[in-house]
Amino acid sequence: MDLYSGYINKLVEELSALPGIGSKSAQRLAFHLINMPQDRVNRLATTILDAKANVRYCSKCFTLTDREICPVCADERRDRTTIMVVENTRDLAAYEKTGKYTGVYHVLHGAISPMIGIGPGDIKIKELVERCSAEDVREVILATNSSLEGETTAMYISKLLKPAGIRVTRIASGVPVGGDLEYIDEVTLGRALEGRTEL
Amino acid sequence: MDLYSGYINKLVEELSALPGIGSKSAQRLAFHLINMPQDRVNRLATTILDAKANVRYCSKCFTLTDREICPVCADERRDRTTIMVVENTRDLAAYEKTGKYTGVYHVLHGAISPMIGIGPGDIKIKELVERCSAEDVREVILATNSSLEGETTAMYISKLLKPAGIRVTRIASGVPVGGDLEYIDEVTLGRALEGRTEL
Repeated sequence: MDLYSGYINKLVEELSALPGIGSKSAQRLAFHLINMPQDRVNRLATTILDAKANVRYCSKCFTLTDREICPVCADERRDRTTIMVVENTRDLAAYEKTGKYTGVYHVLHGAISPMIGIGPGDIKIKELVERCSAEDVREVILATNSSLEGETTAMYISKLLKPAGIRVTRIASGVPVGGDLEYIDEVTLGRALEGRTEL
Repeated sequence: MDLYSGYINKLVEELSALPGIGSKSAQRLAFHLINMPQDRVNRLATTILDAKANVRYCSKCFTLTDREICPVCADERRDRTTIMVVENTRDLAAYEKTGKYTGVYHVLHGAISPMIGIGPGDIKIKELVERCSAEDVREVILATNSSLEGETTAMYISKLLKPAGIRVTRIASGVPVGGDLEYIDEVTLGRALEGRTEL
């Protein structure tokens, strides 16, 4: 028997298609939404549509923003000769929070992954190469994830840019600060050893 | 500095106000929504608004439904002399899935909780009492949660209905089927002992 009404079922279905929301949380969320005051429901729906309608890619670095040029690219004090390449806007935000980086970014919107059919042409690699030839870029820091896809992407970009005489670097891979050695996987421990530095 | 645009921030804020969605998942969801095709975003927003607009309380048992009377109350084969009292529609659905219950329901939409200011007048207790006096009800099964609030609510309802000569029962509390005794808390073990039955 159809326990919930068609409207509830449809809502649960839509919600459980979102990332990180299983069928139980989708049910819980659906009932929460239905019990929310009308004005808050309207506000949520409008906010979703507004964000979708107004957020676009920065014309320089391709991060998501509601302006033609994002705040980082628009900031006169940033060093335009250094570009950090990240997979997505959240990674950019994570690096910005460190407050340690003064260059600009380039957001790829993904990583090369032959397994799920994402090739170099599906992410913003061509745009990065164009940027590097059009502007005075001295260093490209590859800050893609430390996953198979991230490493492949870093390798691919490095091979494209090095012949142009640009310094290409990769962020360090090793033991996280505060990490307990016994709980860290062997691959990471191996990387930490390889990347050891003189004290 | 404002890393994300105002629209993204607003969306993250709205999403993280939902139950079970922390700030990290809200960010992840927000970017997912922005990257979703326009028609899927529209569909999600419409589904939320439609559900809010069309789902109401069943006029008999107060479960959430899109009809005047919910499928359970409308089903001629259900035993109308037995009412199971649950805290919300999800609990009703959980009991319906067992397929073991043939009576009807009454949904309270909450439980008495003086800690967060929910008194007997804030949930559908008055409606239950009215139902019991208007209809021929022989048994009321209290299936509120086995929490402090659920127990308080069950106790309160029982005191209201018993003087009217209605049989009031409480679902059994004990060890879950398949549960491993060593991992079960002492209160539950104590309840299981108290509620032991003859074999």
